[in-house]
Amino acid sequence: MRLLHYSNLPLALLFLVGFPSVVAAQEPTAADAIFTVNNLWLLVATFLVFLMHLGFTCLESGLTQSKNTANILFKNMSIIAIGILTYAVIGFSLMYPDDFAVAGVLGWAGIGVATDAEGLTAAYDPGFTYWADFIFQAMFAATAATIVSGAVAERIRIEAFLIFSAVYVALVYPVLGSWQWGGGWLDAMGFYDFAGSTIVHSVGGWAALAGVILLGPRVGKYVNGEIRPILGHNLPLAVVGMFLLWFGWFGFNGGSVLSADPGEVSFVFVTTAVAAAAGIVGATATTWFVHKHPDITMVLNGALAGLVGITAGADVVGVLASAIIGVLAGVLVVFSVILLDRMRLDDPVGAISVHLTCGIWGTLAVGLLSPDFAVGTQLVGVLGYGAVAFLSALVLFAAIKATVGLRVSEDDERRGLDLAEHNMEAYSDFQIFNVRS
Amino acid sequence: MRLLHYSNLPLALLFLVGFPSVVAAQEPTAADAIFTVNNLWLLVATFLVFLMHLGFTCLESGLTQSKNTANILFKNMSIIAIGILTYAVIGFSLMYPDDFAVAGVLGWAGIGVATDAEGLTAAYDPGFTYWADFIFQAMFAATAATIVSGAVAERIRIEAFLIFSAVYVALVYPVLGSWQWGGGWLDAMGFYDFAGSTIVHSVGGWAALAGVILLGPRVGKYVNGEIRPILGHNLPLAVVGMFLLWFGWFGFNGGSVLSADPGEVSFVFVTTAVAAAAGIVGATATTWFVHKHPDITMVLNGALAGLVGITAGADVVGVLASAIIGVLAGVLVVFSVILLDRMRLDDPVGAISVHLTCGIWGTLAVGLLSPDFAVGTQLVGVLGYGAVAFLSALVLFAAIKATVGLRVSEDDERRGLDLAEHNMEAYSDFQIFNVRS
Amino acid sequence: MRLLHYSNLPLALLFLVGFPSVVAAQEPTAADAIFTVNNLWLLVATFLVFLMHLGFTCLESGLTQSKNTANILFKNMSIIAIGILTYAVIGFSLMYPDDFAVAGVLGWAGIGVATDAEGLTAAYDPGFTYWADFIFQAMFAATAATIVSGAVAERIRIEAFLIFSAVYVALVYPVLGSWQWGGGWLDAMGFYDFAGSTIVHSVGGWAALAGVILLGPRVGKYVNGEIRPILGHNLPLAVVGMFLLWFGWFGFNGGSVLSADPGEVSFVFVTTAVAAAAGIVGATATTWFVHKHPDITMVLNGALAGLVGITAGADVVGVLASAIIGVLAGVLVVFSVILLDRMRLDDPVGAISVHLTCGIWGTLAVGLLSPDFAVGTQLVGVLGYGAVAFLSALVLFAAIKATVGLRVSEDDERRGLDLAEHNMEAYSDFQIFNVRS
Repeated sequence: MRLLHYSNLPLALLFLVGFPSVVAAQEPTAADAIFTVNNLWLLVATFLVFLMHLGFTCLESGLTQSKNTANILFKNMSIIAIGILTYAVIGFSLMYPDDFAVAGVLGWAGIGVATDAEGLTAAYDPGFTYWADFIFQAMFAATAATIVSGAVAERIRIEAFLIFSAVYVALVYPVLGSWQWGGGWLDAMGFYDFAGSTIVHSVGGWAALAGVILLGPRVGKYVNGEIRPILGHNLPLAVVGMFLLWFGWFGFNGGSVLSADPGEVSFVFVTTAVAAAAGIVGATATTWFVHKHPDITMVLNGALAGLVGITAGADVVGVLASAIIGVLAGVLVVFSVILLDRMRLDDPVGAISVHLTCGIWGTLAVGLLSPDFAVGTQLVGVLGYGAVAFLSALVLFAAIKATVGLRVSEDDERRGLDLAEHNMEAYSDFQIFNVRS
Repeated sequence: MRLLHYSNLPLALLFLVGFPSVVAAQEPTAADAIFTVNNLWLLVATFLVFLMHLGFTCLESGLTQSKNTANILFKNMSIIAIGILTYAVIGFSLMYPDDFAVAGVLGWAGIGVATDAEGLTAAYDPGFTYWADFIFQAMFAATAATIVSGAVAERIRIEAFLIFSAVYVALVYPVLGSWQWGGGWLDAMGFYDFAGSTIVHSVGGWAALAGVILLGPRVGKYVNGEIRPILGHNLPLAVVGMFLLWFGWFGFNGGSVLSADPGEVSFVFVTTAVAAAAGIVGATATTWFVHKHPDITMVLNGALAGLVGITAGADVVGVLASAIIGVLAGVLVVFSVILLDRMRLDDPVGAISVHLTCGIWGTLAVGLLSPDFAVGTQLVGVLGYGAVAFLSALVLFAAIKATVGLRVSEDDERRGLDLAEHNMEAYSDFQIFNVRS
Repeated sequence: MRLLHYSNLPLALLFLVGFPSVVAAQEPTAADAIFTVNNLWLLVATFLVFLMHLGFTCLESGLTQSKNTANILFKNMSIIAIGILTYAVIGFSLMYPDDFAVAGVLGWAGIGVATDAEGLTAAYDPGFTYWADFIFQAMFAATAATIVSGAVAERIRIEAFLIFSAVYVALVYPVLGSWQWGGGWLDAMGFYDFAGSTIVHSVGGWAALAGVILLGPRVGKYVNGEIRPILGHNLPLAVVGMFLLWFGWFGFNGGSVLSADPGEVSFVFVTTAVAAAAGIVGATATTWFVHKHPDITMVLNGALAGLVGITAGADVVGVLASAIIGVLAGVLVVFSVILLDRMRLDDPVGAISVHLTCGIWGTLAVGLLSPDFAVGTQLVGVLGYGAVAFLSALVLFAAIKATVGLRVSEDDERRGLDLAEHNMEAYSDFQIFNVRS
């Protein structure tokens, strides 16, 4: 890294050549050191949240049929690209309108905060630089679209999904996020959503619900009044996904402290882990009781349910409360999956149950279990986000349905999206060695 | 995160609402900064050790038969939940009796150390907060039970395994851990086990041995005096497991420094990586010589053997010594696997050889290769831990055998535990595309 | 960790017993805190780069045939072991001749820098200790050989590969690295390669090209003037590999800042992520246009192409420039794969296109898009590295071909290297449950 001399460059070139770092001519202070460790923690949290996208990829692939796997892999790779790029172009500016009024990180029209050393010191924020702020938030943005991906899997047209994701991540998510995290009306009301049970997970879950309603169920799922199981083809892959999501959640929640404050980050690690563990217990007990066997797909969804549930209040509820939130999330997710199936809402991976049902539960739980927040206000937030997220997604999906079309042909669905949309398969010439044939 | 006002809350509510963080009213000092980075490193190490549970999941699934995969996934998800929750309720208090006399993290009966700002500053410990301490140790606790899981795989009843794990992790592991890390009698004697070659790995390994003895071998393993191979169904999954375990070990050993001290943590990274690399070399050379081919399952166990071996002395032996420890661990693990098979002790994944044999080797190696520790004292520790861990596990497994039963029926074992215990399969409708059929 | 007393030990024992850490008797300063966080970041980057080896393992396994999977797993486990051990014995000393003149980390002949507290304080380097420096660089060294592994897969003899890797990593890579990072002639000329588009990726890519030329294509790849597809057997595994590589690249590029400087590391995270995302877009658009379908294997190679491309200039080009570099890398990699196939250069995973083609592009792009560097000088570096890396690899492969032999027999190739070289298979008794048979 070398210091660049900007003074003699035309304005437009600044986005090509990058910005200088601060030169600390004088002795570093303790505040500099704390700023450095705070910023480092946000970057570590960034790569953890990034890995959640691999978690979602594995989870969704594992819980669906092998004839659609390549398509799912493609969708998940696309989402992370779309998330980062649209957030750079427009999302970041929309979500934090006070700070970033002019243009996005990639924008040509103006330069915003970070034209020079501004944005790179604790004067910008004691917890992070402008760039760390951007990249951490960008990883969050893509999450909302990823949640939708699982629910609409195995029948959505690839073009339809890409258009929906790009618009939802670029416009809907940042505007909704600004209500709370950008210092908007819900923040002013006293609504609390620490790391996004509602703002990220429910916002994704509502869109998933809208997509599932407009798409309809997969061929063969509901036949002659019966619910037929369509099993996931690769449970180890799904469990790898769950563990990677939990792993990434230490960054999702821990990073949302927005500093490396020892007490707060450590405490958030504890509530996050306890809620996930309790979610496993809740889902295991429920399926063992309901189905007479512990059901692996529900156990892994139980862990995720606990994680979604604790996300709203990870820093403001106690450890016992986090266990209660997790156990109930694990119970709720099982019944939510059963209920949605009875309503003929076909969600192949249980995304709506995990992210919407437990996102609502976690947000309300903050009002119930923390003395500083009111259930009423939390409910207002849940409903406000729900109305706008669901309607936006419904309108967007309807518009896509009316134009490019939402669903593949029944013939393509039966063949599988891999051959139909990509002319390839996920497992080619996969040879199995039989020792005792 | 907002500051809560506790003064007007009933005592029992404190566990629901959480604890406030320290408010630094004055200027931060350099000591504050170092405390923050120390605590951050312990949290990073925590998520690394957490990921070892995914490593164990992949390793055990990959090295066993596909008809038992769902069951193995369930066991591994259960263990992490059991580990975290029992450690919160009772384990942490048992293991560090001086510090945490009153009750567990989740406890109702009392509040222990962390009722207020206590436990959140460097006054508690210069390396970490109360909560970071708890969550890091909780991730360790679950490890001991995970080791058992691999050895008893493919034939243990799920209820039996859950009961064993819960009791072993909640009671046996913390009491044994307190002998050394809680400042008990072995610590006073001068025994040294840096990060747990004995205290974690051998304690798991002894229980694995007890389980294998009481369960007996899998059907079809030893027939008419012959040892028949029962091959793992997914070697890539097993190798993913090995790499994730090594990855997590940087936190297991590096975090055990209990601070971010630049010299110590860096040095521990070097000895850890060199021992793992040397373990690969040792196992590769041995199997090439013995079997005339490099055996992939032994090569990956060689890496793990090196890691287990270096765990006792990663901070007190030199780099060359770590290479010697690793190479010999890689050799030992191959012969240990052969020997156990000859003794008709059926360990599907080689857990006893990796964790017990090489845990003992690593613990003794500290006495041999570091001038500050005596082989005799190390041997006393090995034997002391061995006697109590093995007998506790034997009694516990025997009690379970006499009550709920330890082993599935032969019929269920032949069908596979997935259908028998979970009524599901790991790979459903897994379609393979044959290009050149 | 205890302090050892060295004064009464024979010299040779120092490598067995390890070195003491610095005892900070006085109050810590802010500079101590910053040194601690800098060093911690380098260690975090180390474990991230380590995980890239799992990424390469998954990528190479997934994109090749299942009959060669066990062999590929073995190669990748070997490389990390070879990389770490040879770098300790000789590579580190060769690459940084000014600092480490006497002997390697493991060496007997002398002790070099780290005989005592030297190397463990900011006096050595404000960014890291001697040991952190070594282990971070060692993880890089193994990368060059890993790149070769994918290109020569499915037909190289295991002995040939091990010998090539050991020599290339131990001797060629460090000497070439010293030209720039060791303060050699290219550094003096003003050549710039931030984290190794040329020094790591092209150096690996040139060797891959040499290997492919000398080995020839796989049986059945080019038949009667036709290019026949040989499909990868496990696309999810390949995509897992891509995500893990991207994850690790945050350490590869971020760690190359060699400190935790908030502005620089944050900025490098942004350019790295934007380039990878843009690479996905470039490759998706190109294959959609060329093949009429988005091709999953090219999309994942597009992400890697963007990452390789940005590696040379991640800290000196702007965000928009990083998007341009990424998009063009994504386009280039598709055409490079097509071109190599037309030239009958059979590279099963596209390693040459990703690492060599895009490594060259990224290095030249620094000259094009940053005003401080000249395209001409960048080209000199590209050609200088290319000539020596390619010729060294060619000579080395030719020598191996003439002695132990380079390629397995046609019969062994048809059976698969797993049975031929390891007498085992990757997927044994992998049972699939068909619900609707």
